Amino acid sequence: MALKKKPVTGMKDMLPKEMEIRDYVIHLIKETYKTYGFSSMETPCVEHIENLCSKQGGDNEKLIFKILKRGEKLKIDEAKEENDLVDGGLRYDLTVPLARYYANHMSELPSPFKAMQIGNVWRADRPQKGRFRQFMQCDIDILGEPGILAEIELILATTAMLGKLNFQNFTVCINDRNILKAMAAYSGFKEEDYDEVFIVLDKMDKIGKEGVAGELQELGYGKESVDTYLGLFDEVTPDVEGIRYLKEKLGCCLSSETAEGMETIISSVEEAKEAKFGIRFDPTLVRGQSYYTGTIFEVTMDDFGGSVAGGGRYDKMIGKFTGQDTPACGFSIGFERIVMLLLENGYEVPRKGAKKAYLLEKNMPKEGMLKVLAMAKTDREAGKQVLIVNMKKNKKFQKEQLQAEGYEEIIDCYADSVDQL
Amino acid sequence: MALKKKPVTGMKDMLPKEMEIRDYVIHLIKETYKTYGFSSMETPCVEHIENLCSKQGGDNEKLIFKILKRGEKLKIDEAKEENDLVDGGLRYDLTVPLARYYANHMSELPSPFKAMQIGNVWRADRPQKGRFRQFMQCDIDILGEPGILAEIELILATTAMLGKLNFQNFTVCINDRNILKAMAAYSGFKEEDYDEVFIVLDKMDKIGKEGVAGELQELGYGKESVDTYLGLFDEVTPDVEGIRYLKEKLGCCLSSETAEGMETIISSVEEAKEAKFGIRFDPTLVRGQSYYTGTIFEVTMDDFGGSVAGGGRYDKMIGKFTGQDTPACGFSIGFERIVMLLLENGYEVPRKGAKKAYLLEKNMPKEGMLKVLAMAKTDREAGKQVLIVNMKKNKKFQKEQLQAEGYEEIIDCYADSVDQL
Repeated sequence: MALKKKPVTGMKDMLPKEMEIRDYVIHLIKETYKTYGFSSMETPCVEHIENLCSKQGGDNEKLIFKILKRGEKLKIDEAKEENDLVDGGLRYDLTVPLARYYANHMSELPSPFKAMQIGNVWRADRPQKGRFRQFMQCDIDILGEPGILAEIELILATTAMLGKLNFQNFTVCINDRNILKAMAAYSGFKEEDYDEVFIVLDKMDKIGKEGVAGELQELGYGKESVDTYLGLFDEVTPDVEGIRYLKEKLGCCLSSETAEGMETIISSVEEAKEAKFGIRFDPTLVRGQSYYTGTIFEVTMDDFGGSVAGGGRYDKMIGKFTGQDTPACGFSIGFERIVMLLLENGYEVPRKGAKKAYLLEKNMPKEGMLKVLAMAKTDREAGKQVLIVNMKKNKKFQKEQLQAEGYEEIIDCYADSVDQL
Repeated sequence: MALKKKPVTGMKDMLPKEMEIRDYVIHLIKETYKTYGFSSMETPCVEHIENLCSKQGGDNEKLIFKILKRGEKLKIDEAKEENDLVDGGLRYDLTVPLARYYANHMSELPSPFKAMQIGNVWRADRPQKGRFRQFMQCDIDILGEPGILAEIELILATTAMLGKLNFQNFTVCINDRNILKAMAAYSGFKEEDYDEVFIVLDKMDKIGKEGVAGELQELGYGKESVDTYLGLFDEVTPDVEGIRYLKEKLGCCLSSETAEGMETIISSVEEAKEAKFGIRFDPTLVRGQSYYTGTIFEVTMDDFGGSVAGGGRYDKMIGKFTGQDTPACGFSIGFERIVMLLLENGYEVPRKGAKKAYLLEKNMPKEGMLKVLAMAKTDREAGKQVLIVNMKKNKKFQKEQLQAEGYEEIIDCYADSVDQL
């Protein structure tokens, strides 16, 4: 079989320039989230195929990279379908593995457990610009905290981190599945139709209000319900006033706990935030995953169409593993999008030590090399980034290249003069 | 399908205690290697099955986690053997992917290219204590540098890093495939038998000199060759004197370039090292991988049977991808072993900020919570690790648990007194 130079389809080799930003962002995320009391944790990249195909991943379950059974367990002759051949798969998100992890280690973990996970996930999506089949996710989750303290801390931590990367003009959009449901109930939709209605509503920012109205009517929903429903969105302002309005208007369809919780989240974040950003109540926010049970939120950025972070409350998932519901709420950053934005904006990673290169004359004798190594040792102990390389024939070109790589100090080392350096 | 709580066979969930050490060690490795001029790079975890099965991975090729083809490409009915079903696999090391990466991006990379890679690899080994099927490797490689400057820099960087983790009593053992060959040639072994002879020699530390002699004779090698061969090992001291002795004794079997290079590496490392350790010439050092072409080295530690790092020169691998040989030399740390040793020794990660917890009275009103959030904000901006949690019924137990997690400052927050905090 011939060797292949390109990475596998849809996946990406990371060049040093991008890696420098990635390493920096990962470190910054870890340091920031630590100050919010989150602890690092990790699960294997390979997960049981049963857990991956448990209907909690929605469409992602169609995109799993599956792993062949090994040894005697693999029976190619008898296999009828894919799942006869495999026993594992690469995780498509970090949430399902977190639920398994929590179920497995509950007794060893604090309660509430504030988890931080940074790791790769894989989805066999159709390759397209800027989207890759292996990508990094950074999640924080608070397990075991039923109250809005979880939402507030997650939003404050995520936005503090974005602020430290100099992002400013972003907005946290927030909604609650229970507000979505209350608006649908008030408008006369039936509970079994909610999911379909929300899928259409989710297109509001693309097809507009009239588009949504049209699609809902095409699906056979009554004009009265559709009109009442869309009328509500006109009347609601994107702030705590909007929530108060809904609370009064929807009456018993909306619990005061939900409405007041949402108000407190918004006003607390406004007052306690570290970074500069806005928080906006967005009654049209749906978020795809079916596992959300309460608050849902998203970060949108002016200079980027689409969200750069998203999350919400999912109080029912962990119970599927443990048999006992555990409140859970999480926020996930679109790490790849953030790195892409930083790269596009020419972001410069704050440098710690100066970059210094020693160029050694060809066939430098041992004594000269030892002298250079001793100087390099002192530089390195002082935190400088030091390169020792042999001089090339075209020294001028070599120096230009080193300068382009950021080496601001370049020292020529010749055997007969190295003592004077 | 029932959900499974345990991780997949042979892989491991990482608890916060271990993750704290892992995160710290990874950061330290990156910072240290940067001062030696290495640049971060990354390849996808999934590699072409053709590249993984190209005979460069030795026995590891039997341990590949293979990835099922997807969509129309998967033809279960027509499949005769494993490789009809798969198109990729999880990488079993970082060296083969590095060679592919270099072949793919050569024109965009500096020359020499000093690469640093930290990432997971997977091997479907029989599960056993302390060995896992997913584990982290940390490699540094210098591509494009034919001279011993590469070896010296790799050894200095790796040992500097170990020193920063407070490891002291370790030894770098070094040898050269060309010295191994010269000793075998001198003793009368034929070139086609070298590999078999070296496999037996590699057992010296387990079965002793007599064991090696016995096995070689059982394999049918002449007594005279075996005696001459093993006699050499008696006469060689584990230092530069030993190399000089061999150079004289083996005559034209050993090139003076190899002997002098080895001498210079040893004496340069002795003089320029940052950490406290010994470097020893070990003519019995073999190292398994067949791809090594020159120097080979290993780090052994007194309090750990076996090596914690290993590497060597492999000047022929990249040419298999590019058609043109490129000198290459690398050093790989046994990351999991190092973390295990640190955990066993009760290593404490140097803490940056103090850990502080605010306990909120049950149903704390919004004003009180805002007050606490404001205090937490100040603490967090000062780098403290701050946890805000609701008070539990058994507050005494809750505080003990928090203390055990390292929270040295725990503040009770009640609505009627929060203003005085």
